[in-house]
Amino acid sequence: MAVPMAVMQSLMQKPISLLLKDNTVLEGVLESYDDYMNIVITNTEEITETNKRKLGTVILRGSNVVRISQK
Amino acid sequence: MAVPMAVMQSLMQKPISLLLKDNTVLEGVLESYDDYMNIVITNTEEITETNKRKLGTVILRGSNVVRISQK
Amino acid sequence: MAVPMAVMQSLMQKPISLLLKDNTVLEGVLESYDDYMNIVITNTEEITETNKRKLGTVILRGSNVVRISQK
Amino acid sequence: MAVPMAVMQSLMQKPISLLLKDNTVLEGVLESYDDYMNIVITNTEEITETNKRKLGTVILRGSNVVRISQK
Amino acid sequence: MAVPMAVMQSLMQKPISLLLKDNTVLEGVLESYDDYMNIVITNTEEITETNKRKLGTVILRGSNVVRISQK
Amino acid sequence: MAVPMAVMQSLMQKPISLLLKDNTVLEGVLESYDDYMNIVITNTEEITETNKRKLGTVILRGSNVVRISQK
Repeated sequence: MAVPMAVMQSLMQKPISLLLKDNTVLEGVLESYDDYMNIVITNTEEITETNKRKLGTVILRGSNVVRISQK
Repeated sequence: MAVPMAVMQSLMQKPISLLLKDNTVLEGVLESYDDYMNIVITNTEEITETNKRKLGTVILRGSNVVRISQK
Repeated sequence: MAVPMAVMQSLMQKPISLLLKDNTVLEGVLESYDDYMNIVITNTEEITETNKRKLGTVILRGSNVVRISQK
Repeated sequence: MAVPMAVMQSLMQKPISLLLKDNTVLEGVLESYDDYMNIVITNTEEITETNKRKLGTVILRGSNVVRISQK
Repeated sequence: MAVPMAVMQSLMQKPISLLLKDNTVLEGVLESYDDYMNIVITNTEEITETNKRKLGTVILRGSNVVRISQK
Repeated sequence: MAVPMAVMQSLMQKPISLLLKDNTVLEGVLESYDDYMNIVITNTEEITETNKRKLGTVILRGSNVVRISQK
């Protein structure tokens, strides 16, 4: 019965998959997050329906994150 | 006259159906939630108009959740 | 000159009509709400341009509610 | 140099025009508002590109209001 | 290294250009703002791809403002 | 394991690339930011699929920022 932020904590330094509001999927390693679900991921790869692109380290604003799961 | 968070509490460990902003429906078991309606569901299945897909355990950011009901 | 939350209070246990961000209309009985305008409605019916569907009791996240009026 | 909420206050009981996020225009009399710009308007008329419709008294959630002006 | 709100302050009573979420551009004079970036502009002109229209004084809800710059 | 705001701090006065909710990319120098991820960038260039345009100094509201990375 881990609360959402405890599940986030359990994903630290692990490969995650993120769905953003615009349907982009980002894959990378969860480097950090804060109370607003702002997130830093490293080795980020952006996956759209037609494309795959390396983005390095990115900061994501929490309000645009739809869902997060372990990869 | 249960307030919204009390109704959430009554759904704990039960199968729920979630409608997200992008019209995706997720079905799964409500594992936890917090004050922002961030939600953890397990045994998640994503149901779109054309597809059905298993997602395992996912963290959902509350701001992208439209509605929640017991399945 | 009732403030918005006082008008919400006056609608308790009454049939209401809700417009959501995705243009869906929900009709049902206002069971409860909180400060974020998260809302519980019972006997919910979802009305889209092409469809009408019973949803039972649903929890709505306030941020996706556009407007509320008595039915 | 009136701050936004002081300008809101000056519009109380006056006819206003509201643009919502979905491009709907609502016209009516400003009955009340709160700190989140949740708004109650009376004698509401909804104006879309193709239609005009009376809505009576409605509660609007602030986050879906784009702009407000005196009519 | 002025923080965002200090830059806002420096634009007071000056002509500004605002991009809204729906891609509308508003031009006018910055009359006031608050901590949520709710904004009052005067002598407002709405500029869409196909149209230009005078709006007078308008209150904008901060959450629908994308960017602000001096005109 | 730097938290998101610490990574923001490390980008101060550096060239960054910003993706906004409407898929516009802005490139410029990070001048300042605040707790809501409101951002000031200078020497801003707006890059859309079909266009490139100089915007000078702009204030961005945090809620419309999707992701930030060093250029």
